[in-house]
Amino acid sequence: MVQGSVNLNTELTKEWLQDYVDSWINFYKKQTVDGEVATYIPILAEADQHALGISIIGKNGVTIKSGDTEEKFTIQSISKVLTFIAACMDRGLSYVLNRVDVEPTGEAFNSIMHLEMKQPKKPFNPLVNSGAITVSSLLSGKTSDQKLESLFILMEKMIGYRPEVNVDAYESERDTSMRNRSIGYYLLEGGYLESDLGITLETYFKQCSIEITIDDLAKIGLVLSNDGLDPNTEEEIIPRSVARLVKALMLTCGMYDASGKFAAYVGIPAKSGVSGGIVAVVPPRVRDEELPFLDGCGIGVFGPALDLQGNSIGGIKLLRHIANQWDLSLF
Amino acid sequence: MVQGSVNLNTELTKEWLQDYVDSWINFYKKQTVDGEVATYIPILAEADQHALGISIIGKNGVTIKSGDTEEKFTIQSISKVLTFIAACMDRGLSYVLNRVDVEPTGEAFNSIMHLEMKQPKKPFNPLVNSGAITVSSLLSGKTSDQKLESLFILMEKMIGYRPEVNVDAYESERDTSMRNRSIGYYLLEGGYLESDLGITLETYFKQCSIEITIDDLAKIGLVLSNDGLDPNTEEEIIPRSVARLVKALMLTCGMYDASGKFAAYVGIPAKSGVSGGIVAVVPPRVRDEELPFLDGCGIGVFGPALDLQGNSIGGIKLLRHIANQWDLSLF
Amino acid sequence: MVQGSVNLNTELTKEWLQDYVDSWINFYKKQTVDGEVATYIPILAEADQHALGISIIGKNGVTIKSGDTEEKFTIQSISKVLTFIAACMDRGLSYVLNRVDVEPTGEAFNSIMHLEMKQPKKPFNPLVNSGAITVSSLLSGKTSDQKLESLFILMEKMIGYRPEVNVDAYESERDTSMRNRSIGYYLLEGGYLESDLGITLETYFKQCSIEITIDDLAKIGLVLSNDGLDPNTEEEIIPRSVARLVKALMLTCGMYDASGKFAAYVGIPAKSGVSGGIVAVVPPRVRDEELPFLDGCGIGVFGPALDLQGNSIGGIKLLRHIANQWDLSLF
Amino acid sequence: MVQGSVNLNTELTKEWLQDYVDSWINFYKKQTVDGEVATYIPILAEADQHALGISIIGKNGVTIKSGDTEEKFTIQSISKVLTFIAACMDRGLSYVLNRVDVEPTGEAFNSIMHLEMKQPKKPFNPLVNSGAITVSSLLSGKTSDQKLESLFILMEKMIGYRPEVNVDAYESERDTSMRNRSIGYYLLEGGYLESDLGITLETYFKQCSIEITIDDLAKIGLVLSNDGLDPNTEEEIIPRSVARLVKALMLTCGMYDASGKFAAYVGIPAKSGVSGGIVAVVPPRVRDEELPFLDGCGIGVFGPALDLQGNSIGGIKLLRHIANQWDLSLF
Repeated sequence: MVQGSVNLNTELTKEWLQDYVDSWINFYKKQTVDGEVATYIPILAEADQHALGISIIGKNGVTIKSGDTEEKFTIQSISKVLTFIAACMDRGLSYVLNRVDVEPTGEAFNSIMHLEMKQPKKPFNPLVNSGAITVSSLLSGKTSDQKLESLFILMEKMIGYRPEVNVDAYESERDTSMRNRSIGYYLLEGGYLESDLGITLETYFKQCSIEITIDDLAKIGLVLSNDGLDPNTEEEIIPRSVARLVKALMLTCGMYDASGKFAAYVGIPAKSGVSGGIVAVVPPRVRDEELPFLDGCGIGVFGPALDLQGNSIGGIKLLRHIANQWDLSLF
Repeated sequence: MVQGSVNLNTELTKEWLQDYVDSWINFYKKQTVDGEVATYIPILAEADQHALGISIIGKNGVTIKSGDTEEKFTIQSISKVLTFIAACMDRGLSYVLNRVDVEPTGEAFNSIMHLEMKQPKKPFNPLVNSGAITVSSLLSGKTSDQKLESLFILMEKMIGYRPEVNVDAYESERDTSMRNRSIGYYLLEGGYLESDLGITLETYFKQCSIEITIDDLAKIGLVLSNDGLDPNTEEEIIPRSVARLVKALMLTCGMYDASGKFAAYVGIPAKSGVSGGIVAVVPPRVRDEELPFLDGCGIGVFGPALDLQGNSIGGIKLLRHIANQWDLSLF
Repeated sequence: MVQGSVNLNTELTKEWLQDYVDSWINFYKKQTVDGEVATYIPILAEADQHALGISIIGKNGVTIKSGDTEEKFTIQSISKVLTFIAACMDRGLSYVLNRVDVEPTGEAFNSIMHLEMKQPKKPFNPLVNSGAITVSSLLSGKTSDQKLESLFILMEKMIGYRPEVNVDAYESERDTSMRNRSIGYYLLEGGYLESDLGITLETYFKQCSIEITIDDLAKIGLVLSNDGLDPNTEEEIIPRSVARLVKALMLTCGMYDASGKFAAYVGIPAKSGVSGGIVAVVPPRVRDEELPFLDGCGIGVFGPALDLQGNSIGGIKLLRHIANQWDLSLF
Repeated sequence: MVQGSVNLNTELTKEWLQDYVDSWINFYKKQTVDGEVATYIPILAEADQHALGISIIGKNGVTIKSGDTEEKFTIQSISKVLTFIAACMDRGLSYVLNRVDVEPTGEAFNSIMHLEMKQPKKPFNPLVNSGAITVSSLLSGKTSDQKLESLFILMEKMIGYRPEVNVDAYESERDTSMRNRSIGYYLLEGGYLESDLGITLETYFKQCSIEITIDDLAKIGLVLSNDGLDPNTEEEIIPRSVARLVKALMLTCGMYDASGKFAAYVGIPAKSGVSGGIVAVVPPRVRDEELPFLDGCGIGVFGPALDLQGNSIGGIKLLRHIANQWDLSLF
């Protein structure tokens, strides 16, 4: 423990931790004024700019929650991680990696330019839009609902219930996201897609519109922390090779144009979305035996005020603080 | 241990490990025919395309060496890691990070385009040439020899002796590397540099021409693995905050255009150079108590036959094999 | 006259000219083997690679035709000139120029990259696809047929009959041109378009599929040569300011990535299409009173074998030869 | 004549023309406040922002001068036209065109990006810096003074005296133009140059620093208008094929990023420099027999207040006005 000595009585530790986290939430909540909520669709524009919440779930069952913990929000780009996993489970990891690379781009998440400029044989990675849409085209099934079925099954195993698409959000995304349609047609023309474009985009817009909570994100993070195994039963939810590769991918490409800084200053795999959600993964390690989370945990954050890179401004600061305090960085 | 059961007798284990590593070296040596040695300066062009060697040094003193272990070679781009550290120690981490970002670029290491296209306030990261040259300009001192002094002091603490610049290599670099001069003048015009350009480039070309062995690289990796502390005395060689940030930077940006794939398939911080060297860092962790290296080690590789991205073709394959066999990935 | 002395008896001159042109056609027909017909839609792929024909119509009524003169072919990108004129007549020149620039791009005609990289307030020019689609959105009318009405009225005045859309070609374009849909959605997202995207693209695909002959192209060129006036009646078909600006635009941007070379080596306003058509405009001038075409003429060329830039390979060479022989360059 | 009827008495006409031009100069002088003088070297920064002058010299000897006509200023980028001509005369047109293309770029004049992004076999055109530096390397001679000799001989024939390099300007250019050094090294690395880089850049900086007046520019324009022949003696100063190609090049690439607009709105070959000079070429033509300039003239303009593209803001407006009033456009 960085901040003072704590004995190993878990209940006491948990109380201390809760106090810390509450105070940090209060502190970083004030800094949400420096960000702005996304406004391109009504459901995002209506979000409470000052909201900030966190849920941390450890493998040993310890849970800390603080701040605005009850909100439901759309998963947005965080879904890219999950459809990538689902596609790998549908098609096999090497099949998917033959169709999408795992390299950072240096370009904005919604760039077409890097495809035209580099003419790569495959999109740069599954966490930029061009790669994510390609991945959605790889999901099994002919309709968008069939394609999403793999995703729903996966998510149900991770979060304990079958999530739902927010229809208003989906319809807004579908009707406004012209850049994604542009990317879609560009991919279609380049031969990158394996499904009908209309179905692929329907799938993509629906997956982005799935509703979720920070507890759900923390649970997703925890399964990834546990290399794809159910943290309670140790049954395989995600093949280990996929789970581990996904964590590397999140670290190098997960936080938009700020992925490098997040790796440097926070140092754990994470993926953000424009709704203000972040899922972060703390892999197991034993540096400090006093801190119960160090055998692995998942973290879910929600804070809709975004910084210029599109990441939750309060969420990033909060995670950086926690990672430094508890020495969570992989490095 | 992935491959069979091994008892905890270290000597026995070491023997087993040596056998494994020898067999892997023999196997991957054959694959060096698929790569090509760099040819832009004589000293690189003369390298033995079929050479492949590895040195692994653990915190506990265990050392495994195999293959072509005695070669001296120029450090090339691996120096970028060390001058970044030296500059952070000369100027302070935040001073340096105000002048160079830590984001992957998606462009080739010697690109100017990304500076013109993005007009960033600082170069993307210290491991592409534009960032590395900027970092060299930040080193203390007025002459190139004064600037290199910080680097030599740092390296001497890490490898146990004061390294030397290969004068032929330096002169070749100085006389042929027109792209780096082009980058240098571009940086100068943009106001990125803090020293005279001539001195800065002289420093840069000299730092790339420092001679080194795989043992040296392994020792450098081991100090980084140990968060900047001397593995024997636990005295601080590098401030912990710098050492840890550097490992994150190596993971996201260290292996040229293949950094994302190296993170995904190998999963440890590493930096390569066009001479065929790679330094890799295995942070301490306790997943498997039988494997002595898992309390942290450094790895040095030399294999001058390069793949299309400019990384040692045999070295990459060998590291991937070892990381998978011994479960070294951070993720 | 460059080639020998010719008296002013027009009939005799015409005979000489016909002989010259016939011999040049025969010569350059052989060089069509070096090009390739476009293959992205069936109607283009079926074209006769060896075809080459020319029609030259002077203001004084002199007409020279040679080679494959009877083919009907789709107008393709040449339509961009005509919809730009129609939009200027519908909306006013300054209205249109506020929405599309007149600068060469240095990029391929179907590039999206230059929009993302430069983020211009308007597409670079009306003769690249992004500009042409924007222009199609500016045409008056709510349906594609209403929008095309301005174009048909304009063309009927120029060529003497109402042209028709080749339905097969249109359907092929509509069903295959995914890059244009990508550009369309990119433009829509950027707020460049003034009509529904579906209608705009329908208009664009139809305009590209209008059937035409080299006589029609020569007549179009002649009206432009005559600053927009009917060459027989001197009635205004196109406002003079529009006609003259269009000729400048054709000179700087009309021949894809080879526009600069065409200006340098041929030196007259021209626009090509991937079906192998070229319209060229010889403005009136009096350098040599013996050559009847020097009071202005229009030239239509058809030669479906294309060079790497997408221009008729035989057509370019033929026009270069004629321009040099008859001293047609503006410069 | 556009503005009222004028009889053919040349003296009277000249008086009228002088009155017109004086009034236009007075009008556009006021608009120079909207521009800014270049400031990157002292000699440019010291220029009078409100200055505006024009010199028009017709083939028939008619000369109109108005405004600030006596200033000497550095020729800057206008020299690119002249070194291109000199190199063509030294090496032959085809030799030079094998080493530099004649295509517009769509990029800024001092861009390196387009070389890296497109990897062309030759720079885009001789009027962007990368092309101009390449052309300077092609000039005969081993020293910069030897190289400039071809240029001085050419210029002396055009302007009647041997011009001189402004040493202060040269030294400023040499000491500050880091971007050009960057471009130079990039070209050197790519194998584009045919002379030592130091000599080439010295040549380039000197050629940009030649002092000139608007009368000189008008005379240069007049020789080009006359297809390279001395307007008085009709002796060949520049080969006709070179003179004509240069005019095409000026039209497509001469006015930086506003070349397309200048062609569309003014319509005559021209080249500008950051000192505020413009040379414009009015080719001979007979549309209106009353206007004495229509048998060809050269125009020199000086107005150091620049617009955002780097062209003289008053000069552009003045030329546009004159071209419209006197119907000078080629189109």
